[in-house]
Amino acid sequence: MRRIYTSLFLFLFATGTALVAGERPNLIIDKKEAAVINNNTGKYTLFDHSLSQLKKAADKAVSSPIVVPPPGEGGGYEHERHKQNYREMYQAGVCFTLTGEEKYARFIRDMLLEYAKLYPTLGKHPQSRDQAPGKLFHQMLNETLWLTYTSMAYDCIYDWLDAETRARIEKNVFRLIIDWFTTENHKEFDRIHNHGTWTVCSIGLIGYVLEDKNLVDMALYGTRKDGVGGFLKQLDLLFSPDGYYMEGPYYARYALQPFFIFAEAIERNQPELKIYAYRDQILKKAYYSAVQTTFPDGVFPPINDASRTMDIRDSGMIMANDLVHSRYGADPNLLAVKKIQKDVIINGAGLMVARDFAAQEKIAPMDWGSIEFTDGHDGRQGGLGILRLGAGEKQSMLLMKYGVHGEGHGHFDKLHFIYYDQGRSVIPDYGFCRWINIEPKMGGRYLPENKSYAMQTIAHNTVTVDQTSQNLANRKQADEMSAKRHFFDSSNPDVQVMSAHAEGYYPGTAMQRTLFLIQDERLPHPVVVDLYRINSDQMHVYDYPIHHQGQFITANFEYQPDVTAQSPLGADFGYQHIWRTASARVEGPVKITWLDGNRYYTLLAAAAAGSEVLFGRSGANDPNYNLLSEPLFLIRTQAQDHLFASVIESHGHFNEAREQSNGARGRLTGIKVIGHNETGSVIEVSGEKELRWVIMVNNGEASVDKKHEVTFSGNSYTWTGNYKVEMR
Amino acid sequence: MRRIYTSLFLFLFATGTALVAGERPNLIIDKKEAAVINNNTGKYTLFDHSLSQLKKAADKAVSSPIVVPPPGEGGGYEHERHKQNYREMYQAGVCFTLTGEEKYARFIRDMLLEYAKLYPTLGKHPQSRDQAPGKLFHQMLNETLWLTYTSMAYDCIYDWLDAETRARIEKNVFRLIIDWFTTENHKEFDRIHNHGTWTVCSIGLIGYVLEDKNLVDMALYGTRKDGVGGFLKQLDLLFSPDGYYMEGPYYARYALQPFFIFAEAIERNQPELKIYAYRDQILKKAYYSAVQTTFPDGVFPPINDASRTMDIRDSGMIMANDLVHSRYGADPNLLAVKKIQKDVIINGAGLMVARDFAAQEKIAPMDWGSIEFTDGHDGRQGGLGILRLGAGEKQSMLLMKYGVHGEGHGHFDKLHFIYYDQGRSVIPDYGFCRWINIEPKMGGRYLPENKSYAMQTIAHNTVTVDQTSQNLANRKQADEMSAKRHFFDSSNPDVQVMSAHAEGYYPGTAMQRTLFLIQDERLPHPVVVDLYRINSDQMHVYDYPIHHQGQFITANFEYQPDVTAQSPLGADFGYQHIWRTASARVEGPVKITWLDGNRYYTLLAAAAAGSEVLFGRSGANDPNYNLLSEPLFLIRTQAQDHLFASVIESHGHFNEAREQSNGARGRLTGIKVIGHNETGSVIEVSGEKELRWVIMVNNGEASVDKKHEVTFSGNSYTWTGNYKVEMR
Repeated sequence: MRRIYTSLFLFLFATGTALVAGERPNLIIDKKEAAVINNNTGKYTLFDHSLSQLKKAADKAVSSPIVVPPPGEGGGYEHERHKQNYREMYQAGVCFTLTGEEKYARFIRDMLLEYAKLYPTLGKHPQSRDQAPGKLFHQMLNETLWLTYTSMAYDCIYDWLDAETRARIEKNVFRLIIDWFTTENHKEFDRIHNHGTWTVCSIGLIGYVLEDKNLVDMALYGTRKDGVGGFLKQLDLLFSPDGYYMEGPYYARYALQPFFIFAEAIERNQPELKIYAYRDQILKKAYYSAVQTTFPDGVFPPINDASRTMDIRDSGMIMANDLVHSRYGADPNLLAVKKIQKDVIINGAGLMVARDFAAQEKIAPMDWGSIEFTDGHDGRQGGLGILRLGAGEKQSMLLMKYGVHGEGHGHFDKLHFIYYDQGRSVIPDYGFCRWINIEPKMGGRYLPENKSYAMQTIAHNTVTVDQTSQNLANRKQADEMSAKRHFFDSSNPDVQVMSAHAEGYYPGTAMQRTLFLIQDERLPHPVVVDLYRINSDQMHVYDYPIHHQGQFITANFEYQPDVTAQSPLGADFGYQHIWRTASARVEGPVKITWLDGNRYYTLLAAAAAGSEVLFGRSGANDPNYNLLSEPLFLIRTQAQDHLFASVIESHGHFNEAREQSNGARGRLTGIKVIGHNETGSVIEVSGEKELRWVIMVNNGEASVDKKHEVTFSGNSYTWTGNYKVEMR
Repeated sequence: MRRIYTSLFLFLFATGTALVAGERPNLIIDKKEAAVINNNTGKYTLFDHSLSQLKKAADKAVSSPIVVPPPGEGGGYEHERHKQNYREMYQAGVCFTLTGEEKYARFIRDMLLEYAKLYPTLGKHPQSRDQAPGKLFHQMLNETLWLTYTSMAYDCIYDWLDAETRARIEKNVFRLIIDWFTTENHKEFDRIHNHGTWTVCSIGLIGYVLEDKNLVDMALYGTRKDGVGGFLKQLDLLFSPDGYYMEGPYYARYALQPFFIFAEAIERNQPELKIYAYRDQILKKAYYSAVQTTFPDGVFPPINDASRTMDIRDSGMIMANDLVHSRYGADPNLLAVKKIQKDVIINGAGLMVARDFAAQEKIAPMDWGSIEFTDGHDGRQGGLGILRLGAGEKQSMLLMKYGVHGEGHGHFDKLHFIYYDQGRSVIPDYGFCRWINIEPKMGGRYLPENKSYAMQTIAHNTVTVDQTSQNLANRKQADEMSAKRHFFDSSNPDVQVMSAHAEGYYPGTAMQRTLFLIQDERLPHPVVVDLYRINSDQMHVYDYPIHHQGQFITANFEYQPDVTAQSPLGADFGYQHIWRTASARVEGPVKITWLDGNRYYTLLAAAAAGSEVLFGRSGANDPNYNLLSEPLFLIRTQAQDHLFASVIESHGHFNEAREQSNGARGRLTGIKVIGHNETGSVIEVSGEKELRWVIMVNNGEASVDKKHEVTFSGNSYTWTGNYKVEMR
């Protein structure tokens, strides 16, 4: 590990000497890097841009009055002010290190002296709710960010301060916070969770600045220093061996920030710990797996509690990208990420990335290919599969979630899928129900509908049983189990497939979903094929939902629209939040076409005789209009063992401004379940130009070379391995 | 007129000689222009781009099999094929003129010979509905386009054809169509309407090609050649003296195409008519007024039946822009239009525009400023007002409609307004209810909900009386009246205003709306102030609606949400299409905030005591999901004389991806009606930082210098002219 550091990092700066303990700053930037940066300004556009942004912010801050208000409510003015303060102290700290101009140091000192007046007067924040409370902020989480960034700022001016001022600040601010975190809130400190990571990061940083080994050891090994809590345990348990973060990518990008800030500080202060090599380079894997889940535009798939717009331009991702690049070695895909990020961290790593970026004539778009991640710290708790076809904006991407629940931010959505096409989610995940940081929306916190709708199974593209949620929406139960990988094969770009099981999420019920992304030259775009098999010990009602965007165009069956009265689809488990807008009884294949953007999408599904189709729209039982108003279709079947077989075809073209439309009806015309049993499932898809696909899937133990045979209605079907797609 | 042509057109090409009658082609391009074009290829990117597109299309066409199918249904394959055929013949005709390559001529000839076989076998199209029928197409309108473009193609190969072939084609195609248009459908021919324009254009063009003066005269003066119908009468009646087109901009851009094609052919064949000078250069004004109504991104405001996306990149607008540039003289704003259009017509005019475009170092965005158009052929039938502030993407634009109904495509929407901000309509017009050219949506035709919702008053941002529509949605009655201009003043950019009357649209009821666009340095963005005054001879229920986009954030009053059941707002006049989603009784000012894109918007309205507020969403009674699902607010008051006073404030900033929000609550806090009578209305708006505006509006006869005084509650208010805004 240390070798890589030397070969890359020092290659750039050619300073040649090891970091000297005790010389400050030494958390994320040091004086030697500052000198190299000063010698390289004006050379790399990317770096110059980021540096000028940082300086502009710092200059504005230091020429404005210092405001340290009493604590206020979450999302309110005071809350935002304290957030701004720590950001500005950090920016000023970096500027002081680069320029030596005392105005930056004075700004940090004077602000900390204001905090030194305020902080001793504070008790537990009066508005804390479920979460560990802070004093400045309603939740301690915000306070750990405050301490993290303030520690870095303090590190920058430590040597400049006189001893008396240091003592005042440390006594009246840092020691009080340290006590609050490590004693009063030791449970939060030792928690294996992103809140815990922020906590240990902040204590670790201030520990290095104060040269307080006790604090650093607590940060690394937990308050009792027994390794049950602390940074290393978090590295052990919060990521799968592939680096996949158990809460999902939205929270991963948030957690990666303290993971990398603290790792970088450890590397600089205790290189003997070889933190970047820890757990087979788990930090590298953590970063890669986060960016590798993103849509081609760099937006994270909003699985679990997540916004639909968070992307790799988040500041934590910018920093992590640069540190990964400098600590683990250059990679064209990291530069492709940078092309989206357009920003670097201001230290040696950021300079290095900017240099490598400038050296490339052309940066290709990110290309991660199809990829599967295992989930759970042991890598045996299911996973996340992503099938990709095409590159950049034209990529089609199919994602299935079959891992762990993911604790408090987890959704009850095993075997849920998202389909991304035309540069956005056309079969979307709802994400969280939260208007983040919008003060009139409950201070920007999670809203009640997050629990009552967004987390529930029906808010996702996965089957519900008896109109309830998986695990009856009991988080504790859900955390104790996981879905299971079955097989994943992207070796043939034209026929890619992933399959997974979810057993026991409903009592006595086992589910298996197999999703194909298929390209056939007779069709203009890739097609999603879905085989969703359910086995149970008794009869149930199975609902198969497809959430979508855009406008309904046509269906191949008669439906009864709810035109003069609307009522909710159900009473609980999220159904109470969906207006029923139409219903139908169907026999045989269901074909529903809608328009989204410039394309048409058709769901063609083999509905069993006597099935129902329901159309719905989110927004019922939503007194404060917290929910988005979005449509869905749902196929409802009463059965014990059942196979939902369906195809989602993307077809045609619509340009309203040019008044052009073609191919508004799909080219696929039929879908049929030939049979399914414990050995395999067989379906047939047919379409124009005599297109006919016979698709066979292995329902038994996964194996790439086992021969399978099933007989349905007197016809025998054989294949070797996990699946076969016969295309005629 | 001819002078301008010489000075500009010949300046470019220096051919110096007048057009020779009888030399073909001579409709839109001639051989001399072709020679100049050939000498200038490779010089102007814009022209080269358009030329290569045209050649690519023509080359693809001439190397593909000729397909002339029997007639089919509107929007279906055959319909689209015949449309494609005339476009391809036109493209091939231009290419033949430019290159002399016979493959293009043969393509046109062979296709026309196919039509010569088919056309004599055809009768009236079996699927024609309300409109005049074609034979190839379900409506004659499409057939006039066929004849227009085919005439231009035929013109290009006329000299190349042998006499026998010409005779066959003329006898079996052109003479039959001519007869169909001028005899069987002479009413359509003589109609003062865009369908009439397309008809006379097509007959005029084929008249020039065939040197048939009778046809040309009919085209110019009507089938009876008495000037009651025909092109000149259309120029007289379809535009206001300002050039504003009575059906509105969406149909203007469609009508301008035949107007300009035929005008250009007239200028080339009968320059003595001085068609471009006709009616004080009405063609110039017609083009300018169309582009001047657009939003800064070039999209037409969707008033009347119109899509929300049609823009100045429409082919008719591209052609008209180039012809206006060449015939009336260069103008930087025409080049700014070209920057959006990115395409030119392939003839001398297009080459000239491309040359002028290339000569500019930088093209500024379109800048039309605030502008008012009169409506009606006499300019005395109300108008259309547009207030603009800021430039390009950052422009705020407020549009009020107070002109004529606009015949069959008119909406019952007098005093309706649209507000454009952040690059889109934030207070939108619904536009038409039509999924244009989408075959499964009734062949892409107008849908029933166009009449039952989109045309109705409640679908617009204007007051309804007793939950009915203006003129009880009777088009004939609506066509016989118009709203009236009151005053318009944009001389002070910070306080711009327009005011108009609509009298008798509801029996015994007079309405006056005054809209301000106000900029106050204490507010981050411009603000809309609305004084909507209604006087009636009896009590009525007045509904004041605001249609919007985005997500509800908060309101300053208690409301009863319809959370477990929804029903329509009413039974008729469009109300049946709106789900009621909440209701409230309010006393005093109403404040409702919603989020749209990156900004918050707040409606602050002075609701009279006992008013109701209703929240709604379109989509009820819509069995085929033809409507968009969009929200609205509505303030309901029972009164005889009433003044709705309200402000729409744009404020704050939201960036979900960066999780930033500020200013989610508006800075304006109060609005009060001080009084209103036949002399004037006075309201007061107040806000943070002691902001206080007293706004006075003249309700009597418009006058810029008359002194007004009103006394309300013992306080006297005086002002000179039509309005006064006291800002404190």
